[in-house]
Amino acid sequence: MPGVRDKVAVIGMGCTKFGERWDKSVEDLIVEACYESFEDAGLKPKDIQAAWLGTAWSGELGRTLAYPLKLGFIPITRVENRCASGHDAFINACYAVACGAFDLVLVCGVEKLKDTGLPIPGDYNPTQLYTSRVDTGFLPVTPWAMFALRYFHHYGIPVEEGRRILAKIAVKNHFNGSLSPKAQFQRRITLEEALNAPVVAWPLGLYDCCGIADGAAAAILTRADLAKNFRDDYVLVKGVGMGCGMYQGQVMDDWSLVHVEETVRASRMAYAEAGIKNPRKGIDLAEVHDCFTIHELVIYEDLSFVPRGRAREGVEAGTFELKGELPVNTDGGLKCFGHPLGASGVRMIYEVYKQLQGKAGQRQVEIRNQIGLTHTCAGTPVDSHTAAVAILGLRGA
Amino acid sequence: MPGVRDKVAVIGMGCTKFGERWDKSVEDLIVEACYESFEDAGLKPKDIQAAWLGTAWSGELGRTLAYPLKLGFIPITRVENRCASGHDAFINACYAVACGAFDLVLVCGVEKLKDTGLPIPGDYNPTQLYTSRVDTGFLPVTPWAMFALRYFHHYGIPVEEGRRILAKIAVKNHFNGSLSPKAQFQRRITLEEALNAPVVAWPLGLYDCCGIADGAAAAILTRADLAKNFRDDYVLVKGVGMGCGMYQGQVMDDWSLVHVEETVRASRMAYAEAGIKNPRKGIDLAEVHDCFTIHELVIYEDLSFVPRGRAREGVEAGTFELKGELPVNTDGGLKCFGHPLGASGVRMIYEVYKQLQGKAGQRQVEIRNQIGLTHTCAGTPVDSHTAAVAILGLRGA
Repeated sequence: MPGVRDKVAVIGMGCTKFGERWDKSVEDLIVEACYESFEDAGLKPKDIQAAWLGTAWSGELGRTLAYPLKLGFIPITRVENRCASGHDAFINACYAVACGAFDLVLVCGVEKLKDTGLPIPGDYNPTQLYTSRVDTGFLPVTPWAMFALRYFHHYGIPVEEGRRILAKIAVKNHFNGSLSPKAQFQRRITLEEALNAPVVAWPLGLYDCCGIADGAAAAILTRADLAKNFRDDYVLVKGVGMGCGMYQGQVMDDWSLVHVEETVRASRMAYAEAGIKNPRKGIDLAEVHDCFTIHELVIYEDLSFVPRGRAREGVEAGTFELKGELPVNTDGGLKCFGHPLGASGVRMIYEVYKQLQGKAGQRQVEIRNQIGLTHTCAGTPVDSHTAAVAILGLRGA
Repeated sequence: MPGVRDKVAVIGMGCTKFGERWDKSVEDLIVEACYESFEDAGLKPKDIQAAWLGTAWSGELGRTLAYPLKLGFIPITRVENRCASGHDAFINACYAVACGAFDLVLVCGVEKLKDTGLPIPGDYNPTQLYTSRVDTGFLPVTPWAMFALRYFHHYGIPVEEGRRILAKIAVKNHFNGSLSPKAQFQRRITLEEALNAPVVAWPLGLYDCCGIADGAAAAILTRADLAKNFRDDYVLVKGVGMGCGMYQGQVMDDWSLVHVEETVRASRMAYAEAGIKNPRKGIDLAEVHDCFTIHELVIYEDLSFVPRGRAREGVEAGTFELKGELPVNTDGGLKCFGHPLGASGVRMIYEVYKQLQGKAGQRQVEIRNQIGLTHTCAGTPVDSHTAAVAILGLRGA
């Protein structure tokens, strides 16, 4: 079998409390997440043979991970793919384990953003032709607001009606976050609070936007045939996928601006590897990239949970709620965890791992297929995206 | 066989002219290198199934590669490991091909430094505890100058004698560079010129230091069993290795400051995979990280080309010259190509690929074992390194 399917197992995971971690350095967050993963797997740092660090701006070189963990001269790859950095690190680690290069590896995603905020897009290398031109003057919320209005228009949804649909997603995720001890925001909100919140960029209000947070998460991977030596309830990697866009060309020429093609491609690749023909029926839960509620709405369609243009029906029917047919963002998502870029993808894998093991406490969902999906997506609709998907399944699934 | 050995083949390579490329953007350099690799392999961009971008500062996200090459929504990983970024990208691509995830992938290393210079170490994220403290106030040459004096002292080499040994390395590399049409500097120098050049940081003079340059290089990889469909003289990946250090702790506590442990570990890993027991006898040529001549000197020892402390004897004997027993930096090395960080590792693989194929023109070395080694090493002796090694062999080697 080519690729990673059923060759790689997750045998330990860790995740910090996300939020305002003013008193913690990047290294402190790495230690907090990784030591939880070591303990969960019953390992020590010296057992790790290679590591992957996923971070967009909170580190440079493998030593960012080597120093705080005292990893002795092992290979450490630092991966950056902005919001998909954590997933990309995880996927590359899977390839290395799947080809037999290592038996035990560590993946850590980390980002510390509260001190610095998001670096301003456009403030990059002046020798690159395109980055500055495309990004300057945009904050992430601006193009997503344009996207929301365009989506509403395309499907004939009155803006106030559209805002109510998005608010329902925010209410759902805040409810789930209230059951997540590690979330940045653990407070439930009402539909009225969401709709009456200050507008950030019309039609998106405060509760349509995820927060800026600090956080880290970590995973220990091994070869599938070794996993039973570490635990019975290990989780297998069933399929991975990525899709990387090409700047604004496709927006202007080819895009309707009502979907994100990169997510479609990434999920198609992962579904093919995992052998999932009907995602709506075959997946128990999904953690997806709800940087803004409109993004979660369109992700339902891009991941083929619902037909194109029909996401709102799913929202109205409660399909994606904790007790719905296909719960999405069961831990509260980016909405409640905030979005420390490199950490988010690995944090999602942490949630799916715990859910598949039946260890998600008050937010535990029903596990029927023993399959969960995670998804991050970097970029904005007016430049381009990098989307990444990892599908996990409980042993034997 | 675990790992990558004999599972991955290089079937096409490209490399730009290195140097002052004021009129070219990062994207232009990517196009120049990658299209040479496509042509060499007889492929088109649309044939590429996944890609890895190695760059330290000249890009962000996979789209840096996707846009100029119009790679349609494929997975693209961006790897950063400072000076080892190119090698690290190459190694991760090897893992993905070796596990069967893709049949045809692209690796591109690129950096454009002439416009910006080297970003100042220490000017990093203030939320990281250690980077700033270690790096501030150091330029790369400063710790290498300390290292040189310490090395001379440790082995009882008078400083003027040590400078003469280093100058011989510079003379060798400038000779080789004079035969490299793509090198930044293609001018031979004399021992006297090297010794009388302005001092940059005692005992290192101008010709002990590599230049700042722009450049890019690219490789097309496929599964070994598919390689013969593309060309007869494909090159196999025989072994890869990396070693990542942990900041200054080991310098102060454990290091003699006369070797770089990361290079020892990276090469040990690669030698084991490639089955090389005696590197001095088993390798036809090596491209190594001569950011400063003292680094090349100690690399001879760290790669086990000579016993510890005996590198100067090899230099005096001409062992590493073009017609010597084990030619090193046959294209002129970083000394003559400059060091566009992400590009350097892939540029080295380009040289070894051409040499193994017998296509290195005036600088062609004798190929007996059909094995070549490449090595980059990020960092400085007073913070920490990331070393990476890739060993390549002609088909059937």
